[in-house]
Amino acid sequence: MELPVFFRGLIWLCLISNLVLTYTLTDESQVHTDLLTGYNKDLRPGIDRTYPLNINASFYLFSIKEFDLHSGKFTVTGVFLLNWYDERLVWNPASYNQTNITSIPQNKLWLPNFININPYENIVGLGSNLISVRVLYSGLCNWYALQAFEVICDADVTKYPFDTQYCALKFFIWGYDPQEVNVIFPTTQAILTLYTENGIWEIADSITTTEVNVYGYEEIIVGFYLKRRTAYYIVSLILPISSISLLLGFAFLLPPESGERIGFCTTILLSIVVYLTIIQDQLPEASEPNVSILGYILVSYVSSGAILVVFIIISLRIHNCQSNKPVPQCITRLVLCCRRRQTALDVVEPIESKSGNRIDDEDFAVTWTEVGRCFDKMCFITSIVQFIATLTTFMSLTSP
Amino acid sequence: MELPVFFRGLIWLCLISNLVLTYTLTDESQVHTDLLTGYNKDLRPGIDRTYPLNINASFYLFSIKEFDLHSGKFTVTGVFLLNWYDERLVWNPASYNQTNITSIPQNKLWLPNFININPYENIVGLGSNLISVRVLYSGLCNWYALQAFEVICDADVTKYPFDTQYCALKFFIWGYDPQEVNVIFPTTQAILTLYTENGIWEIADSITTTEVNVYGYEEIIVGFYLKRRTAYYIVSLILPISSISLLLGFAFLLPPESGERIGFCTTILLSIVVYLTIIQDQLPEASEPNVSILGYILVSYVSSGAILVVFIIISLRIHNCQSNKPVPQCITRLVLCCRRRQTALDVVEPIESKSGNRIDDEDFAVTWTEVGRCFDKMCFITSIVQFIATLTTFMSLTSP
Amino acid sequence: MELPVFFRGLIWLCLISNLVLTYTLTDESQVHTDLLTGYNKDLRPGIDRTYPLNINASFYLFSIKEFDLHSGKFTVTGVFLLNWYDERLVWNPASYNQTNITSIPQNKLWLPNFININPYENIVGLGSNLISVRVLYSGLCNWYALQAFEVICDADVTKYPFDTQYCALKFFIWGYDPQEVNVIFPTTQAILTLYTENGIWEIADSITTTEVNVYGYEEIIVGFYLKRRTAYYIVSLILPISSISLLLGFAFLLPPESGERIGFCTTILLSIVVYLTIIQDQLPEASEPNVSILGYILVSYVSSGAILVVFIIISLRIHNCQSNKPVPQCITRLVLCCRRRQTALDVVEPIESKSGNRIDDEDFAVTWTEVGRCFDKMCFITSIVQFIATLTTFMSLTSP
Amino acid sequence: MELPVFFRGLIWLCLISNLVLTYTLTDESQVHTDLLTGYNKDLRPGIDRTYPLNINASFYLFSIKEFDLHSGKFTVTGVFLLNWYDERLVWNPASYNQTNITSIPQNKLWLPNFININPYENIVGLGSNLISVRVLYSGLCNWYALQAFEVICDADVTKYPFDTQYCALKFFIWGYDPQEVNVIFPTTQAILTLYTENGIWEIADSITTTEVNVYGYEEIIVGFYLKRRTAYYIVSLILPISSISLLLGFAFLLPPESGERIGFCTTILLSIVVYLTIIQDQLPEASEPNVSILGYILVSYVSSGAILVVFIIISLRIHNCQSNKPVPQCITRLVLCCRRRQTALDVVEPIESKSGNRIDDEDFAVTWTEVGRCFDKMCFITSIVQFIATLTTFMSLTSP
Amino acid sequence: MELPVFFRGLIWLCLISNLVLTYTLTDESQVHTDLLTGYNKDLRPGIDRTYPLNINASFYLFSIKEFDLHSGKFTVTGVFLLNWYDERLVWNPASYNQTNITSIPQNKLWLPNFININPYENIVGLGSNLISVRVLYSGLCNWYALQAFEVICDADVTKYPFDTQYCALKFFIWGYDPQEVNVIFPTTQAILTLYTENGIWEIADSITTTEVNVYGYEEIIVGFYLKRRTAYYIVSLILPISSISLLLGFAFLLPPESGERIGFCTTILLSIVVYLTIIQDQLPEASEPNVSILGYILVSYVSSGAILVVFIIISLRIHNCQSNKPVPQCITRLVLCCRRRQTALDVVEPIESKSGNRIDDEDFAVTWTEVGRCFDKMCFITSIVQFIATLTTFMSLTSP
Repeated sequence: MELPVFFRGLIWLCLISNLVLTYTLTDESQVHTDLLTGYNKDLRPGIDRTYPLNINASFYLFSIKEFDLHSGKFTVTGVFLLNWYDERLVWNPASYNQTNITSIPQNKLWLPNFININPYENIVGLGSNLISVRVLYSGLCNWYALQAFEVICDADVTKYPFDTQYCALKFFIWGYDPQEVNVIFPTTQAILTLYTENGIWEIADSITTTEVNVYGYEEIIVGFYLKRRTAYYIVSLILPISSISLLLGFAFLLPPESGERIGFCTTILLSIVVYLTIIQDQLPEASEPNVSILGYILVSYVSSGAILVVFIIISLRIHNCQSNKPVPQCITRLVLCCRRRQTALDVVEPIESKSGNRIDDEDFAVTWTEVGRCFDKMCFITSIVQFIATLTTFMSLTSP
Repeated sequence: MELPVFFRGLIWLCLISNLVLTYTLTDESQVHTDLLTGYNKDLRPGIDRTYPLNINASFYLFSIKEFDLHSGKFTVTGVFLLNWYDERLVWNPASYNQTNITSIPQNKLWLPNFININPYENIVGLGSNLISVRVLYSGLCNWYALQAFEVICDADVTKYPFDTQYCALKFFIWGYDPQEVNVIFPTTQAILTLYTENGIWEIADSITTTEVNVYGYEEIIVGFYLKRRTAYYIVSLILPISSISLLLGFAFLLPPESGERIGFCTTILLSIVVYLTIIQDQLPEASEPNVSILGYILVSYVSSGAILVVFIIISLRIHNCQSNKPVPQCITRLVLCCRRRQTALDVVEPIESKSGNRIDDEDFAVTWTEVGRCFDKMCFITSIVQFIATLTTFMSLTSP
Repeated sequence: MELPVFFRGLIWLCLISNLVLTYTLTDESQVHTDLLTGYNKDLRPGIDRTYPLNINASFYLFSIKEFDLHSGKFTVTGVFLLNWYDERLVWNPASYNQTNITSIPQNKLWLPNFININPYENIVGLGSNLISVRVLYSGLCNWYALQAFEVICDADVTKYPFDTQYCALKFFIWGYDPQEVNVIFPTTQAILTLYTENGIWEIADSITTTEVNVYGYEEIIVGFYLKRRTAYYIVSLILPISSISLLLGFAFLLPPESGERIGFCTTILLSIVVYLTIIQDQLPEASEPNVSILGYILVSYVSSGAILVVFIIISLRIHNCQSNKPVPQCITRLVLCCRRRQTALDVVEPIESKSGNRIDDEDFAVTWTEVGRCFDKMCFITSIVQFIATLTTFMSLTSP
Repeated sequence: MELPVFFRGLIWLCLISNLVLTYTLTDESQVHTDLLTGYNKDLRPGIDRTYPLNINASFYLFSIKEFDLHSGKFTVTGVFLLNWYDERLVWNPASYNQTNITSIPQNKLWLPNFININPYENIVGLGSNLISVRVLYSGLCNWYALQAFEVICDADVTKYPFDTQYCALKFFIWGYDPQEVNVIFPTTQAILTLYTENGIWEIADSITTTEVNVYGYEEIIVGFYLKRRTAYYIVSLILPISSISLLLGFAFLLPPESGERIGFCTTILLSIVVYLTIIQDQLPEASEPNVSILGYILVSYVSSGAILVVFIIISLRIHNCQSNKPVPQCITRLVLCCRRRQTALDVVEPIESKSGNRIDDEDFAVTWTEVGRCFDKMCFITSIVQFIATLTTFMSLTSP
Repeated sequence: MELPVFFRGLIWLCLISNLVLTYTLTDESQVHTDLLTGYNKDLRPGIDRTYPLNINASFYLFSIKEFDLHSGKFTVTGVFLLNWYDERLVWNPASYNQTNITSIPQNKLWLPNFININPYENIVGLGSNLISVRVLYSGLCNWYALQAFEVICDADVTKYPFDTQYCALKFFIWGYDPQEVNVIFPTTQAILTLYTENGIWEIADSITTTEVNVYGYEEIIVGFYLKRRTAYYIVSLILPISSISLLLGFAFLLPPESGERIGFCTTILLSIVVYLTIIQDQLPEASEPNVSILGYILVSYVSSGAILVVFIIISLRIHNCQSNKPVPQCITRLVLCCRRRQTALDVVEPIESKSGNRIDDEDFAVTWTEVGRCFDKMCFITSIVQFIATLTTFMSLTSP
């Protein structure tokens, strides 16, 4: 009577498709009466307690409802298809006018009460009182336990929004040791034939298995590897804040006499701060295992913005320096160095306008305006380089 | 006794309207006792199991409570009117002083337990213990199962806020195959006679049908095609952000000597960023099937704002160029090209003020100020064109 | 035994106040036993089924808890006082040592199960198992069914925040036709003696009635007309945004040479945008029956702000016009027209400073500065007029 | 057997502390069987119905969980200690081997079902099925009914954040008149020995009493006077917005030629608007009994800010007035008046620099610049005075 | 039969691991029938009532779900392992074919009903009806009561975000005095072998103990000392707002003639205000025991920003002072003092440019420009010092 668990599902499907129902209501009613009289649903099936009860389990995922990084709430809807043999539910179809299958409400039978051990709110069992168990004359019970599972799943936001998360539904069969009740997953993955895609998460992989924990109890695990779809985040977060942050450096290109450098800088800085308010609402507060790299990037945008403002103030002071105050030697040399590089680039122009006397004595006639212009140029290049470096670092760190 | 399902409803209505209730409390009490003694509500009606039980179903929509794009929660209130024959509930009115109809609480009878298979929270059955089933002497059961249905409905936000969504309530009759219980919808649409309009969504169409899924189970489907009413979104989202974004380009019309160009630009950019904070709160994070076109438009507003700022900085540098630095040839030609077009437009003016010598040698006397003015004009036209192009693209992509 | 329903309440009150309780616990216990033995609570009272059962109903409102325009959730707490005759609960006080009244838990008796047909969440019946029904020896049942009712109420936000809403609690007595159970409201309004005022809503009127719907079922309706208290909205919404919006026009009064016109305008525009973020959070998204007039006003503030900015840019261009470019004829005439109006107003001044030669040749000597000043004046007046017009329109449209 | 209610508690405590439990499980089991056989928990204790049942009640407050001004939700956790005599639960300890006390689950006994009549959500009874009633051999029942009470409490926000609120838990004993069941509070206040302080609210006073309402029903009232702790609100709301608002007036001290007056003003105004967004989120929408004074203060900050901006524009126009336009007489006199007051203050300086000729002819040589300076001074003083007046008004109106 | 509680766990583990299950379903069924017949689950175990029932308790923490400072909601998931002897559940394994262990659903047995006395919402008991109790033939009951506990925990936010909180789950065994039921914790800490780390909180320490309160009742306490992980808060809160606040002082370094000082200051002030909106959303409103130091720091940033703006206005007035107005003596001395300090620093430069006549007569030729420059320098230094002092104070006050 004990078949290898692997074949049960197949047999079941064959039986159902070829079913001819020739019996009457009275016959089925008699089966119910005969089976349930004296049935004690507190006791597990299995006449001989030496052998464990084998339970064949599959998980059909319907949909991922929600995965909230802040609260760690992970909610999926799915069906556990469980089947097992209950010897107390065996009958002879011949005695009941070929009644070979029936449905019995789940609260009248012993059920492998999978209890979710990482629930988000309260402990819930599988199924509901509305669900019936299909029972075959051989005692094979087939239970499709539909359930919305809410579990705790601590996210690792390090690579947000390019992250991959692992979330698992974990169950105990309360009150039974592995040598009493034994769960077997014929497939190593959750079955996705009835799955409808989630807008944010993609299922990279899934796993269905059992594991024995430190206290000798068997945990039933249905785990999902979720890969975040990144299109939305690139469009809504990365692009806007990057394009605004990039602007900051351009302050050095503004003519110093325009009198708008500081206004430009501070307004852009304010825009970054405003934008941060949206992004920080989406990032969880978690510091463990890591603060998200995006968080570091954002703070680096704000801090480097503040530093830039200081540099612009310095630049303005240079431009406003009284011309009678001589430029120190060290700075003069730096400016000349800078001027030479530009000369190398502007090979066409200098020929007429600056030829001959440029290298001779103008080296020692560096003005504060020229120092300022040189300073601006260096700062601009530095800020652009720093911006690209930050972005590149982020991309390389978050890539899998 | 088994009537075509189509006529049941009619008969029912006739019966109810012509009802003369001449019996007493004792008669009705006797009917209850006689019917329910020995009634096993775990077993479906149908003496002969060869034929399936036909269930006649209609869905009366009361109201759409909520459809939250973020969480995918779709909530409707409605009534399932189900009727079927239960042979165990047949009685002879003559024996009971013409008692031909009675009400029996729903928890005492077998019911076709429609189980919602895409629930948002938990599995719920139809109706509640407060609801009674109307039973006619012929065994015809009439069950008005009032329920608030909360289902998951993944929205496609691509065309937001000009989107049309399809949401369905899906049910299984748990524990029964299609050859055991068979659901028939006499109408192909949900009945809207008792419906009160929703402020956001308009019901474009609805569908009531049954479908057999890959595993051979029959799904009962009540689907709605919802069209978003767009007035609010045009007034509150599209108009304000568009009118602010349009302003950006006008920075090029500001006299460069006013010293307010950069301030203008950055403050407008900041306003766009602030406005984004409202809009992005309303857009779901979904990247599947598509990021919303509106999201792309918004990011293009911010990015093109950033690019504009860079162009304004360039324009300011041109205006501030030292006049002793000659204008390169290529730029001179561009400016002349631009000047000619303006001449074509200003046919009246040039006659007195610029006649004769304009085309002669002024071509080669293009000043940096003129270059700047020409550059501003081109940028202004480009920005307006780009703005209109963006808006047109959005409108054409989101139109059905 | 069947009294006119109108007198029942009075009789009840008299009975209660004159009550002398001379019986013992044993007597009352005997009454309970005798009444409830064989009592079938599934069957409605009324020996003769020819006549309907009359139910006398009153609604005592306790408080309005919440009315959320966004979700359409309307929550009130109140008591339904229902009384009816149940002939099965008649006893002779003389036989029970003058026991003339008793309390029976509500779950042991037949109750008119009012089912709320526009519930916000789930179907709930009246009362709770903690509540008892007071039963008089004559069979008169008195049931004070305390309940918090959560119903859906679609708001019409057109006139927000000067709106009046109508919200109704609607009930069916499930399973009974009007010729079986008949509900009568002795008063046409809800009773407010125990009502505590709500901070936001004022009850303008209420209605208690029954209505027969298209399918012949009787709906029991308790409706409330709610008038919003407007003080808060005027102080917190209308005043601040109006005073900021009004400022926009003053940009034209700023001396053009101050170089702050654009900065002023854009910062004020930004303030309006920021203020919008608060207000739009309070407005529901509904477009049906109408977008709120306030929404239109707000968008008109933003749009007219944007238009004003464009006009200020034009004004600045006029002020910065090179003086060698002559003022076109049409504009000259407009300015003169404007100058004359000012002369009419400034009757004292012109006599010394501008007399004589003003009208002679200065007409043709209109400078760009004068054009700009005239343009500013016109724009200022227009903007103030438009602002007042907008506000007046809003007030007139939202007044009842 | 009927003791004065005042002594019951004491006797109880004595009994408990001196308890010697010498009986066995079998004895206690026999007590349970004997007491509960034939016990009808629907009937109140009291053999002779002529006298009401006295119930001795005390309320031990554990903690105030929440008091949300917006929704009016007031949640406390506490224990009702109720004791009464149930003659049906009297036994002779001698017959049961000195078993003089036992615990009986609350769902097996008659309980004074206190029903909360101002619940926030649903009607709940006291206690839970997990709780037992301690029964003494004399029939004295002691019930510690632990409960989290959620009630509606309409706040009066007029003096926010210096407000004191009164919130009450109100109960009916459903189904019983005061001449049947009578509740007595030995103490007039809730007992706070087990209370843990709340971070926001301080309990100023409490009251426990019973009241007969207009319909003759007895209301059991446990009321709390809550005083808000103000430290947080002063630090987080009042101080920051006041210090920013105060800044506005300083605009008049800015040198008019700095060209930053308007920018300063509008940015400060924007900061106030941004700050308002936080504060208005914390204020409820209620207009009844009063809009909060803080709300009026906030709107006055915004409006007076707007008016200040207008005055600054006027000031700028004065400063920019063409010097050839003469200053009107009335203004000249005002300025002279102002100048004299400054002279009175600057007694030391004027002696050398302005002596002699000041009063002679400079009176009639008042320039527009001087008018502007005088106007600025007056406006500055006015704005500071108005600011202090507003703050003083607020403080005086909100002080108790 | 009564073993020292310390050894029970060990014995249990040995028994389970060596278990050979040789009995049949019928044997186990017989055990159930024999044990539960006549079992009264309302009565506690313990034949002789003289001795209390000893309950051995351990708490295994699974995860900390949430600790919300605002609402004071602290939620953990864990298992209470309770074991005790119930003499009524003793059987002789020999009589039942060596059946030495069985599982009985928890709702059929007496359980030590731990009732949480600081629940966040409602009273809940341990476990659920899905959970079974493992019973050994010796009467030893082993109950793994899995539960999500939601308790109130008032946070002390003084040192936020460098705070350590203490939260405790508190239980009563309702209806039993310590001399009746006695709880013993073999370990003094919660067991963390199955614990998964929380992203925000680190468990610094835990405690499991029992305590007798003022009324003589025994409280069972499971307490946790939680240390906040600070990385996130430093990166997201402290760093950005500090770097922006630091900028404020740099306004004094801006060349006064740039005309951007005020704009710079106010925009930075606005950025601080915007940033405050994020931070204040994260801080609870509590004023008891203390307002958070961070709150004081934030308000000091805003206030000192406001003061700085006033100083900048003063500085601008000094710079714009007419040169004909002489500098007062006291100020002159201050400036000279300042100049000398700079001279001491600039030892190299002064030799050529300012030597000789500097100290002689320039002392009395201090210009307003020099006064302004000196004032700026002092203000800058003061602001930086004040900023560092504030930050240092914060760090020292929040360090444990």
